[in-house]
Amino acid sequence: MITKIDHLGVAVKSLETVIPYYEDVLGLKCEGREEVESQKVRTAFFAAGDVHIELLEPTSEESPIAKFIEKNGEGIHHIAFATDDITGQLGQAKEKGARLIHEVPFAGAGEKLVAFLHPKSSFGVLTEFCQDAK
Amino acid sequence: MITKIDHLGVAVKSLETVIPYYEDVLGLKCEGREEVESQKVRTAFFAAGDVHIELLEPTSEESPIAKFIEKNGEGIHHIAFATDDITGQLGQAKEKGARLIHEVPFAGAGEKLVAFLHPKSSFGVLTEFCQDAK
Repeated sequence: MITKIDHLGVAVKSLETVIPYYEDVLGLKCEGREEVESQKVRTAFFAAGDVHIELLEPTSEESPIAKFIEKNGEGIHHIAFATDDITGQLGQAKEKGARLIHEVPFAGAGEKLVAFLHPKSSFGVLTEFCQDAK
Repeated sequence: MITKIDHLGVAVKSLETVIPYYEDVLGLKCEGREEVESQKVRTAFFAAGDVHIELLEPTSEESPIAKFIEKNGEGIHHIAFATDDITGQLGQAKEKGARLIHEVPFAGAGEKLVAFLHPKSSFGVLTEFCQDAK
C-alpha cells in the first residue's frame, strides 16, 4: 500500500544556483547533501512537511538527469511514493498493465529499496516506489 | 512559513483514461471531482498521505492546461505549498528576487487563497502557494 509521497525529484543544472531559491524564496531548510555515483548525480534535500524535495544535479553528461534536462529543461523529474510492500506494489502495477523499468527493487539512497515505473504507462509522470530497507 | 506540500497538479488529457491508473496501478482512492470554470479544467483528486494529487483535464483549448500539454505532453504541472501566511510568503519571494505571476492571492478551489510564482524564476517548477481561507 502507498502510505505517502516520500519525495519529489527535481532536475537542476547546478545545486549552487538553485539551493538559494529553496532556502531564501521558499524558506525551506537544506537537510543534507549526497553524491550518488551510480546515478551520476549530486543531490541536496529539503523537507516540506513529511515530504522531501530532492534536487538532482548531473555529474556527467551520461547521467539520466543530464539527458532529462537536455530534453525537457529543469523541472520536476519524478515522484516517489513510499510503500510498505514494494514487491507487492510492483506486482500489482504489472498486473494492472503498468510498464516497469525495474522488475526487482534495488538499493537506492538512504537505505531504501526502490524501483521505477515507466512514464509511458503512467501518463508522463516518472514514478518511483520506495520502501525503508531497515 | 511553508508547512507542507498541499498538492501536486498533474496535467492529463482525459480523466476517464488516467483515473484507473491512479486507482488500480497505484491503489489510491479518488476522493472527489470538481470542475473549475475559471481555469477551464475538470479535476479529480487523490490522497497520498496528507498530500493530494490533483489531475487536471482541460475543458477548452484555451485552458492553461491544454497549452501545457501541447508544449510538454502530460505530466506534473505544478507543486503547491501550504503556507500559514500567503501574503508574507509572496512578499518574501518577491524580496528575494522571485518573479510572481500573482502579486495578490485570489480565491482558488476548496476555499483556499492561492498565488503562483513564475517557473522562470523557480528553475522550471511552476510553484503555487495556498492558504486555507476558512
